[in-house]
Amino acid sequence: MVTVFRIGHRKNRDKRITSHLALVARALGAKGITIAGETDENIIRSVSKVVSEWGGSFSIVFIPYDEWIDFVEEWKQKHGLIIHLTMYGENITKFQLDQRFNSIQNSDERLDHLMIIVGGKKVPAKVFHYADWNIAITNQPHSEVGSLAIFLEKLIPNSLELNFLNSKKKIKPSIEGKKNYT
Amino acid sequence: MVTVFRIGHRKNRDKRITSHLALVARALGAKGITIAGETDENIIRSVSKVVSEWGGSFSIVFIPYDEWIDFVEEWKQKHGLIIHLTMYGENITKFQLDQRFNSIQNSDERLDHLMIIVGGKKVPAKVFHYADWNIAITNQPHSEVGSLAIFLEKLIPNSLELNFLNSKKKIKPSIEGKKNYT
Repeated sequence: MVTVFRIGHRKNRDKRITSHLALVARALGAKGITIAGETDENIIRSVSKVVSEWGGSFSIVFIPYDEWIDFVEEWKQKHGLIIHLTMYGENITKFQLDQRFNSIQNSDERLDHLMIIVGGKKVPAKVFHYADWNIAITNQPHSEVGSLAIFLEKLIPNSLELNFLNSKKKIKPSIEGKKNYT
Repeated sequence: MVTVFRIGHRKNRDKRITSHLALVARALGAKGITIAGETDENIIRSVSKVVSEWGGSFSIVFIPYDEWIDFVEEWKQKHGLIIHLTMYGENITKFQLDQRFNSIQNSDERLDHLMIIVGGKKVPAKVFHYADWNIAITNQPHSEVGSLAIFLEKLIPNSLELNFLNSKKKIKPSIEGKKNYT
């Protein structure tokens, strides 16, 4: 399954956004997230807690910010594909009609080789160049969390209804919501 | 068009998540967001700046936290519909097949009467009760930003390619991304 790579993380400013990115990645079927930036043990702990309670085997790894470029180059050397989510990219509605999109979607092997890059406000300019495809989830400014969610939902089969192995918690979905409210 | 209601905002902890919610709401076609919690002038300023640069007429309003219930009751009295996004709700994949979903989607009038509630970690239990429908964007824990993005993308026609009136900035989408990188 796909890997998410978040470039940029400042412990104070980004803690909640990076947590949300990790949880969105997990919930919608990515196998893990790597984050280039300041290591944040609290995020590792809170995401690991979700994994242990809700199941699956999602990985979360921090690397020093400056190593982002080595990480990306190594990925390329192993013939990995890179999609960069950016408001400057080709609109997803167009890309979705493309056979390149379908060819990934229908191949477990290609999904395994796919890395999705999401940046923060200031993405290094080279990222646009390393990416095989720069894709926009709307060409408006909004949120890397929102973009990742929409993209994974479209890319990964059954992303909205995944079953996670070894879950201790499981919700019984109901139109009335949480049953035990008072 | 639909209105988003965010219940809960603590100035320090939630500033970026609430900003992202507002920008996702705007980018994907909501007409505005109301936030019950601590008024945050920085968020109002930054969202207003996006609106003035990128166009449209998105509104952002804070109300005191305790007034959330009056706000919701007033909405109900005006025959408004309420959808609450929550991991405990009916899965969106099921709700999407429902004619209630289609009946909203295909009616500007019904979209105008629709309020989408997104909470933070601790949503008051009564919200589940006020909601006409509690809908889950996956039944896994992740992000209100991700949930709102996926839901609006599904609900609002052409949400990924909206045109905003009076925009000073506009992106020329490109698979190569930002053209003027160095």
